[in-house]
Amino acid sequence: MRALVFQNGRIEFTPAWPDPIPPKNDVLVAVELVGICATDLEIVRGYMSFTGVMGHECVGRVIKGPQDLIGRRVVGEINCVCGKCAMCQSGLSNHCLDRQVVGLFKHDGVFADYVTMPRRNVHLVPDVISNEEAIFVEPLAAAFQIVKQVALDQRQKIIVVGDGKLGLLIIQVLALKVPKNKVVLLGKHPEKLTFCEKRGLQTSLLDDFLIKPEWDIVVDCTGTADGFTTACNLVRPRGKLILKTTRVHDKPIDMSPLVVNEITLIGSRCGPFPDAINALAAKQVVTNGLITASFPLEEGDKAFAKAAEPNQIKVVLTVKK
Amino acid sequence: MRALVFQNGRIEFTPAWPDPIPPKNDVLVAVELVGICATDLEIVRGYMSFTGVMGHECVGRVIKGPQDLIGRRVVGEINCVCGKCAMCQSGLSNHCLDRQVVGLFKHDGVFADYVTMPRRNVHLVPDVISNEEAIFVEPLAAAFQIVKQVALDQRQKIIVVGDGKLGLLIIQVLALKVPKNKVVLLGKHPEKLTFCEKRGLQTSLLDDFLIKPEWDIVVDCTGTADGFTTACNLVRPRGKLILKTTRVHDKPIDMSPLVVNEITLIGSRCGPFPDAINALAAKQVVTNGLITASFPLEEGDKAFAKAAEPNQIKVVLTVKK
Repeated sequence: MRALVFQNGRIEFTPAWPDPIPPKNDVLVAVELVGICATDLEIVRGYMSFTGVMGHECVGRVIKGPQDLIGRRVVGEINCVCGKCAMCQSGLSNHCLDRQVVGLFKHDGVFADYVTMPRRNVHLVPDVISNEEAIFVEPLAAAFQIVKQVALDQRQKIIVVGDGKLGLLIIQVLALKVPKNKVVLLGKHPEKLTFCEKRGLQTSLLDDFLIKPEWDIVVDCTGTADGFTTACNLVRPRGKLILKTTRVHDKPIDMSPLVVNEITLIGSRCGPFPDAINALAAKQVVTNGLITASFPLEEGDKAFAKAAEPNQIKVVLTVKK
Repeated sequence: MRALVFQNGRIEFTPAWPDPIPPKNDVLVAVELVGICATDLEIVRGYMSFTGVMGHECVGRVIKGPQDLIGRRVVGEINCVCGKCAMCQSGLSNHCLDRQVVGLFKHDGVFADYVTMPRRNVHLVPDVISNEEAIFVEPLAAAFQIVKQVALDQRQKIIVVGDGKLGLLIIQVLALKVPKNKVVLLGKHPEKLTFCEKRGLQTSLLDDFLIKPEWDIVVDCTGTADGFTTACNLVRPRGKLILKTTRVHDKPIDMSPLVVNEITLIGSRCGPFPDAINALAAKQVVTNGLITASFPLEEGDKAFAKAAEPNQIKVVLTVKK
């Protein structure tokens, strides 16, 4: 099969990578459309020391597996878990101590004609959700994880720092849970903030914004040291800071506001696929306009270069027309 | 009066600094013994841009104030608060939005013959507590803050990273709340770990210890980027990391374990003085042997140089014999 492989420190389009053979209890998916995530860009910088087929955001059709799934359109969770360890047994299977992670750790990814994944990872995509929407299920689930981890009430003031793809999903999810006038997206890119403003969501350019420690809940999805510092300085004493991005910070950080203001920082990773699928099906979360570039799988290197440009939001790869 | 003043970027012993004049509702304290804290060393590096009389750990006697306090031995809380702001009104007066902090922010400190502080800040020291013990009340209160912020149960495994003065107090406080075999102090200094071992507390040298993410609660009181990284890598998925030190980190940090393992980091600052005083009075927490050097106030510069040596624990200044 065709595959986009990270090996020898670079991304290589490989026309004849071995087809995956699904183990027992796995399904084989013919991939249709995939998305490039910030974590994929980190992989190229050496994150997780990963080698193999890249990618974890996809939509495709089941071609091998249980009869009721054959031919159905699906998305897949990324954590392939043991079901037996202390974490799995305590209901925290996303933290399985023996896990593989699709396209990130010990498991080939989705930037290929086919991918195999455990049956339990697979979720059906309703017809009302297009492929172009479905590739947002995985990051949208990560956005929903915030509201699983943090209790929200109607009086809290919330600010999201970072107007990348994840920030644009998170602000929409939060606005489902609290009044729209209680949540603000802070960013650097006017064209990305416009996406929110069209939907009646509050935004501000960082340069126009007074940084004061008066926000009850702050979400950092910038992935930069400066963004993290901004986020720390926005949280009120005893407030909460949600950290969403795994990028290694590029310079020293003054963490003293966390201590002086006794802030609670909550690391937040993968989230519930059903919530994301339901929100997309109900059109509660909108992704129209978030795909800013599309390339065929063969042009993966061009797609990655594009995805690294600051004005891009989501760059996708078309695997099957 | 005599005072140790931070000005012009250096510590200066000043033989004729103006005596403080207590405002209404303040008491005037004749200082007897003071301790040098890691934060004082940070002040010298520019932390908080503080200038004025340094120091916040002290014991002394009231010489002006309410009649019932005159001549009594006291210690003082460091946050001088307004009592009116949103934080004060919500019971979080240590986070007063209009606060001064003794020896740290907009308020002269205790490295002097006299200090003035609000009546509400002052706590009586029982006779069973010596001056040499009383100067530990402030940092010991900060150690007790951990058990105010984090619910502990008897099954949790806890590890304290950093065998400085704060670590040696924190391990003792934690061992009051959970079984001794559930809490470990991880350090670099055999002579400091010996202090704990004599008291039946578990310790390990960092070099001999296998760093695995399997601890329910980790306390970082190292104040270094390497220490913070070690602490992050010890917390189990969904575990808690308590951050106690305000030192600015000296190099970039990989914060991805916080996100990948969905760790909750809790910043922790000042704590309850009564709990600290009660524990010292009951000899539940021992400080004998923690004072490793003593200087007269006039030799403040020598005392600070000593306090910066890695083998030191607590360095004190004698103000009144």
